[in-house]
Amino acid sequence: MKTRDRILAKSLEMFNEQGERLVSTNHIAAALGMSPGNLYYHFANKEAIIFELFQRYSTQMHQTMLKIMPTDRPFAQSDKIELFEKALESIWQYRFMHRDLTHLVEDSEKLCQAYREFAHAMIGSIRLIYKLQIDSGLIEATDDEVDSLLVNLWIITVSWVNFLCTTGLFGYSDPLTEAMLRQGIYQIVCLEAPYLRGEARATLVELKARYGKPLLTGQ
Amino acid sequence: MKTRDRILAKSLEMFNEQGERLVSTNHIAAALGMSPGNLYYHFANKEAIIFELFQRYSTQMHQTMLKIMPTDRPFAQSDKIELFEKALESIWQYRFMHRDLTHLVEDSEKLCQAYREFAHAMIGSIRLIYKLQIDSGLIEATDDEVDSLLVNLWIITVSWVNFLCTTGLFGYSDPLTEAMLRQGIYQIVCLEAPYLRGEARATLVELKARYGKPLLTGQ
Repeated sequence: MKTRDRILAKSLEMFNEQGERLVSTNHIAAALGMSPGNLYYHFANKEAIIFELFQRYSTQMHQTMLKIMPTDRPFAQSDKIELFEKALESIWQYRFMHRDLTHLVEDSEKLCQAYREFAHAMIGSIRLIYKLQIDSGLIEATDDEVDSLLVNLWIITVSWVNFLCTTGLFGYSDPLTEAMLRQGIYQIVCLEAPYLRGEARATLVELKARYGKPLLTGQ
Repeated sequence: MKTRDRILAKSLEMFNEQGERLVSTNHIAAALGMSPGNLYYHFANKEAIIFELFQRYSTQMHQTMLKIMPTDRPFAQSDKIELFEKALESIWQYRFMHRDLTHLVEDSEKLCQAYREFAHAMIGSIRLIYKLQIDSGLIEATDDEVDSLLVNLWIITVSWVNFLCTTGLFGYSDPLTEAMLRQGIYQIVCLEAPYLRGEARATLVELKARYGKPLLTGQ
């Protein structure tokens, strides 16, 4: 692996496990057994590492969205499940960003701009995927309903980790587990449930069971 | 007004207008024409001011929830609208907390604990209000549906301001306006729409118009 990629992989691992705020470039260099000078040769500062990781996450999400849209057949319920699983995989892989998003975006004008472009493009892709589901009879919704659904879907998806951390309602504990993320998908399934038709409606119970209802656990 | 209350009122005003992170206790003292020493006599640090403001916000929200639950008649659609308006008023009044919640909670163990208790109690109140709406035929939903609705409602409500700031999708500009907050209620109305019955369903179009659909505005 190239040094640049090793730095990115180790940073991602440490940000995910310890939280981005507690990890400095010196910590990353030490964990890689390299001098801070060598790290700075590749990245000017921690912001540059975070920005590069965001770009990789963003590219991965865009590719997931593109790949999921069939060009030669109608959109199927299995495509939807694949989309949930792939999105979950990316969110899990880059989970530190979902935990610390607000302050990351506030601290970097460049990341703020890139994130806004990402959100805008993703909202467009989600709208397209709703349209494909409507075309193949998996969802019934008016344009206004789709507009509100996709905004709510976006907010719940990107805020889920934060919700777990701040409220502690579902027995959140550090570090985050993949099971906790899967419960966020359960909330999305419930959000869409009233609009599901055909196979999507018929397999709703299975889909809910697949992701697991979050259970309130006191404080 | 007592000095302590003047400090709280001015702090709230400055946090809301400038963002909590940009306002120090020295700025607050200067704006009140008082010495930093006099301010410290009342509050040991900024964290203590924020904690007191949070407690006032929390008390106000609890009182709103309690007052809205009728004891001598069924829950009416007008109660629901009053609830939306009162909640909106409190969120507007203490809007800096919704903007900066994650880092406020991360930076203070005491606030983190108080916020978790608040979230737990509020989720309980929201569940009770759903039950009242079901009893009076304004909503039809199973227990599982109510569980998912209230979690999604909570996430959308507390994340709305943050969503506006980070994505810039609906033409967010500093400072936040009350109209932007009202659009968050529109998203809640849409979330609940499939479950509304009776008068709630019959007046859905009016209710949506009252809060105003957010319009995508590019980046």
